Amino acid sequence: MNLNQLLKPRTIAIVGASEKAGFGGDTTRNYLKFSKNLDQLYLVNPGRDTIFGRRAYHSLSEIEGDVDLVILCTPQKTIIPLLEEAAGKNCGGAVVFASGYGEVGPEGRERQRELVEAADRLGIAVMGPNCAGFANFVDGIFAFAFLVEERERGGNIGMISQSGQIVLGGLDSPNMGFSHVISSGNSCNVKVEDYLDFLVDDEDTKVVAAYMEGVTKPEKLVAAFQKAALKKKPVVVLKTGRSSKSQELAKSHTGSLSGADKVLRAVFKRYGVVEAGDLEELMSLAAAFSWLEELPKGERCVFMNVSGGEAGVMADLSEEYGIRLAEMQQETKAYLKTLVPDYGSVNNPFDMTAGIGYNTPVMVQAMEAISKDPGVDAIVVAYTITLEIWDDTISHMVEAVSIARRDKTLKPVFWIPFIEHTRHQESADILKAAGTPLLPTGRYGCTALKKILDFAVRTFEPMEPAVPEGKHECSHSLSEFESLNYLSSHGVPVPPQAVAATADAAVEEAGKLGYPLSVKIHSRDIQHKSDVGGVKLNIRDEAELRAAFAAVMDNCAKNAPDARLEGVLLKPMLKYGTEMIIGVNNDRDFGPMIMVGMGGVFVELFKDVALAPAPLTEKQARDMIESLASYPLLNGYRGGAVCDKEALVNLLVKISEMAAEGKDKVKELDINPVFITEDGAAIADALLVMYDD
Amino acid sequence: MNLNQLLKPRTIAIVGASEKAGFGGDTTRNYLKFSKNLDQLYLVNPGRDTIFGRRAYHSLSEIEGDVDLVILCTPQKTIIPLLEEAAGKNCGGAVVFASGYGEVGPEGRERQRELVEAADRLGIAVMGPNCAGFANFVDGIFAFAFLVEERERGGNIGMISQSGQIVLGGLDSPNMGFSHVISSGNSCNVKVEDYLDFLVDDEDTKVVAAYMEGVTKPEKLVAAFQKAALKKKPVVVLKTGRSSKSQELAKSHTGSLSGADKVLRAVFKRYGVVEAGDLEELMSLAAAFSWLEELPKGERCVFMNVSGGEAGVMADLSEEYGIRLAEMQQETKAYLKTLVPDYGSVNNPFDMTAGIGYNTPVMVQAMEAISKDPGVDAIVVAYTITLEIWDDTISHMVEAVSIARRDKTLKPVFWIPFIEHTRHQESADILKAAGTPLLPTGRYGCTALKKILDFAVRTFEPMEPAVPEGKHECSHSLSEFESLNYLSSHGVPVPPQAVAATADAAVEEAGKLGYPLSVKIHSRDIQHKSDVGGVKLNIRDEAELRAAFAAVMDNCAKNAPDARLEGVLLKPMLKYGTEMIIGVNNDRDFGPMIMVGMGGVFVELFKDVALAPAPLTEKQARDMIESLASYPLLNGYRGGAVCDKEALVNLLVKISEMAAEGKDKVKELDINPVFITEDGAAIADALLVMYDD
Repeated sequence: MNLNQLLKPRTIAIVGASEKAGFGGDTTRNYLKFSKNLDQLYLVNPGRDTIFGRRAYHSLSEIEGDVDLVILCTPQKTIIPLLEEAAGKNCGGAVVFASGYGEVGPEGRERQRELVEAADRLGIAVMGPNCAGFANFVDGIFAFAFLVEERERGGNIGMISQSGQIVLGGLDSPNMGFSHVISSGNSCNVKVEDYLDFLVDDEDTKVVAAYMEGVTKPEKLVAAFQKAALKKKPVVVLKTGRSSKSQELAKSHTGSLSGADKVLRAVFKRYGVVEAGDLEELMSLAAAFSWLEELPKGERCVFMNVSGGEAGVMADLSEEYGIRLAEMQQETKAYLKTLVPDYGSVNNPFDMTAGIGYNTPVMVQAMEAISKDPGVDAIVVAYTITLEIWDDTISHMVEAVSIARRDKTLKPVFWIPFIEHTRHQESADILKAAGTPLLPTGRYGCTALKKILDFAVRTFEPMEPAVPEGKHECSHSLSEFESLNYLSSHGVPVPPQAVAATADAAVEEAGKLGYPLSVKIHSRDIQHKSDVGGVKLNIRDEAELRAAFAAVMDNCAKNAPDARLEGVLLKPMLKYGTEMIIGVNNDRDFGPMIMVGMGGVFVELFKDVALAPAPLTEKQARDMIESLASYPLLNGYRGGAVCDKEALVNLLVKISEMAAEGKDKVKELDINPVFITEDGAAIADALLVMYDD
Repeated sequence: MNLNQLLKPRTIAIVGASEKAGFGGDTTRNYLKFSKNLDQLYLVNPGRDTIFGRRAYHSLSEIEGDVDLVILCTPQKTIIPLLEEAAGKNCGGAVVFASGYGEVGPEGRERQRELVEAADRLGIAVMGPNCAGFANFVDGIFAFAFLVEERERGGNIGMISQSGQIVLGGLDSPNMGFSHVISSGNSCNVKVEDYLDFLVDDEDTKVVAAYMEGVTKPEKLVAAFQKAALKKKPVVVLKTGRSSKSQELAKSHTGSLSGADKVLRAVFKRYGVVEAGDLEELMSLAAAFSWLEELPKGERCVFMNVSGGEAGVMADLSEEYGIRLAEMQQETKAYLKTLVPDYGSVNNPFDMTAGIGYNTPVMVQAMEAISKDPGVDAIVVAYTITLEIWDDTISHMVEAVSIARRDKTLKPVFWIPFIEHTRHQESADILKAAGTPLLPTGRYGCTALKKILDFAVRTFEPMEPAVPEGKHECSHSLSEFESLNYLSSHGVPVPPQAVAATADAAVEEAGKLGYPLSVKIHSRDIQHKSDVGGVKLNIRDEAELRAAFAAVMDNCAKNAPDARLEGVLLKPMLKYGTEMIIGVNNDRDFGPMIMVGMGGVFVELFKDVALAPAPLTEKQARDMIESLASYPLLNGYRGGAVCDKEALVNLLVKISEMAAEGKDKVKELDINPVFITEDGAAIADALLVMYDD
């Protein structure tokens, strides 16, 4: 869908324009106040001849020529007729403020369906309904319904939100400058994903910030994320729906159905999408990426503090948030030592003392020296900026940063305050001009810094995403034998196996497989084989095999009388190793998700699993394994075996390829356990669930 | 130590008073500007006759009458002679700004030792050295060396910090009002613990906020904490030294040695000390406790939001931070439903919509209704307060809170903004007057709210703390037999056991104990018995016992030739159960700490342990066990056994009593494992380490 007529219109009509408070009046007032060019604006109101001294048209049809965008400030009932009238003016975009749609139960949902149908039929991209509109600061178009105070807001952040209130929060943030701001509301025929795609493409947008309640176009979302990753354009997303309570609220708020949260998080991770935990993070991360002139080349930071106490606080926080402290060279330290008073010492965090804090030129020298150190990637000045600047140190330090940053080879600088006092706008403006993000306080600041550093250093491996093409309702399970055969025929290494319908056949197959082996009932109707006496292990010879065959068949006939028994499944006993589990769950939006974890309570109690979308590269598979808290258990823990991690990596990659290829066939796979030994990885049991169609 | 002459002096002399910038000048200027009563102030400077138009004394001796407090703005070398001179004026307190002491290596530490010696000898309580002084807002005494802007700062927060910069941060916080502010610096003869004790006692102080780098008077600290807990006076502490880096910094900063961090955290928990993770938390928690007129009676909150998007964000955050959402009664919900527009719905978080947000009287009605609901303990209004109030909603909502809070039976109200905009001081002032804490944004706000609710609902069980009386250097291990006997003779239940020096004696003892049993080498020189072949399990009869005796003795003679072998230890085989470990570590400051965790990798990899100071009540022991992530494994996990938790509770209590009683005897105890079964808890192995003296 081309959004240019909606978001970059040449001619605009406000329908329901007015001088009174309310959507019509506020939108008109905002438009006239904040928009750059009023030549191509038409105000439409059947009851008025002029509005704020401008000609008012009585209807859209009265306008001469085409109208790219209509901003509909009128009630729900009027919307479809107005869209039809607008279509006669070759209109390609509409903003619909009216509520009473998907957010208000079955009748509303039906009205929204009708609206989408009309919009699609007429070829009009609709923003809303139940939205607050948009502002395009690049072209100077302010089609936004909530009043805001007068301020320059232009910049390079493209922001989308399903909640108008949250857009307002962004607009009210004095440190955010925008290319586009979009309140998408119920996102009826233009979805959050479409706007996201627009902003990722948009050259005036340096960073995309999105508040999302749900996903409706997963393929488009993934494609936009991939495009952003390839450009290394930061996309910061706050997604609600982590709690069941907020899922419930999103449904009643904009009619969104929230996707499975863990899956979305794994998708974010794959594409380097920066996830924000709340609004403060969303705004501050967007502002930080917006201000930064260049990303750090690595993640090693030097903190500069003015007191030992604050340096100590920063040391604790940097460890807590996994921020890597740079190890400066002896030469750098020796030089810094000449700058600090006798009682100072050169550590990282570097307590430069008030001596340097009060001395602009010396602080510039210190920053230059730290920046030149090859072991340093970024400098973080940590000091509270008070509202009413009495403390001289702040102005000295802000000035020092500003001077030091004139050297464009200086490594990136960040500023973290300790207490929420960072509203001294003049200091903020100087830092912004110096490309130095003023992060929020303490923990927020460290969270933001860590996410920015992670984004800066990550490499992206483009992969063809495996989003399913169809929606599949019905499915059926395969037997263990069939499951393993399917895996094997799709390139996944599985141990040898055979089925036998009679004891004689079993003996013959056992001759080929070799003893000792396991005997399990072969029946697609029995999933919990042990529960019905359908498993015998460690069968050492023919006599034991015949006895086991008889016992397994008898037990199952007795304990599962309705099951079709097709004989037994024979497998050589595997070498026991570390037990892992591997799973595939085919998400209806994002396709097969690969899960790996240590078997047993590690998965269940400590939730120690890694999740990633299929397919996986070897590096991605390795990263998943190494991200497990229980990973040391695979790696020679306490003198134990060093397991064959590469065999597990290979298994994960092959399974992920099978799952990606089978994105419209394989619903679930449960491998539990797979034994990882010093020289391999062997699947001991597997259950595949396939779609019927 | 009585701190009244130091902190509440009647007569004060500033030595080194001056008109010039620097400690002397800034302190003088501050004192003259901010202190209430200048009658009893003497300015001392040998080279001046007047300072700022006031008479200057050439020496302390020149002053007629006594001087309670001297503020020494002079260099390090002059300090001891001045203290001696001051003692002649019956001086009982001194503030020493000078640096060059414990923070600057061995010579400095020696100078500090001399200073302490002089102060103790002269009976003078010294604040500092290397400090920034104090301000007593109750009596109007401003003995502080850093300049701050003019503002009313009186209030009920008592703040102590080893870092002057951090005190300055507090003083600069517009929402903090203080009774006392103390920059203790190197805390030479008056320690942080002494100030803490003073503020816990002080009736003008409602909440104590402390920044600490180390502990030097553990007994005093614990006593002050216990006193505060009994009064339910909140004590908020930021302790650095969580990371090794910050421990290193603290040492170079104020010469503090940071105590074992986990131990201190367990002590905080015992006494309900509210721990702050950084400065933002320290300040905002202090301010919140200061503003609150009454603590909530329970922890069930209702959130009031103005948009569905923000309600969703709040729902996610409240779940993440464990804030309990109140379930309102149907009656309350039905009433609220009449207040919201048609499209609104009544959930918690309650999206009251802009309809109520803009309507002060209706919001007051909503708050009253929510407050009257017996299922609600507190109300949290969540809305961003912008700097330049354009958005009418804010003033309407702030006004509504203010009106609703006039009813003193209204349950406590908190305010959490979403984005760091909370510097609209007029709104903050109205909320403060209404006893409604304005918390920081999102995550910080939720952290603070959770900590306040936890503090509000916790009950304190006073216990005699077991702080060791002596310092013990040398220690020795007991054998397993001796360890278990010691435990047994100190009230800890242990399974039967016997030692035998010969095979015949072993057979005789086995007859009393019963088979099957375990045979282990009995030697205090061998700690890892299995490693030297010193263990045989599951011995079923006399023949096996004799063989085992011979094998164990032979193996150890061969593999541990230097060990004194005293025979074997016999114990009936225990019923296998869930393996737990219990440990005691006698902290030199805070005494025996009891540790419990699930055995094996749970402790080692997931650090899933609970720690608490001895002794323990049954409730405390139970809380420890239930706090383990692996606790479900004890409690019928996946159809497993429901272990005898009460037996484990009893064991912990008995061990803690043994450890508390042995606070100057027992250094360490390592019980690994103890088997917890459906009907008991049995210690399988124990190692005690005892102090020599």
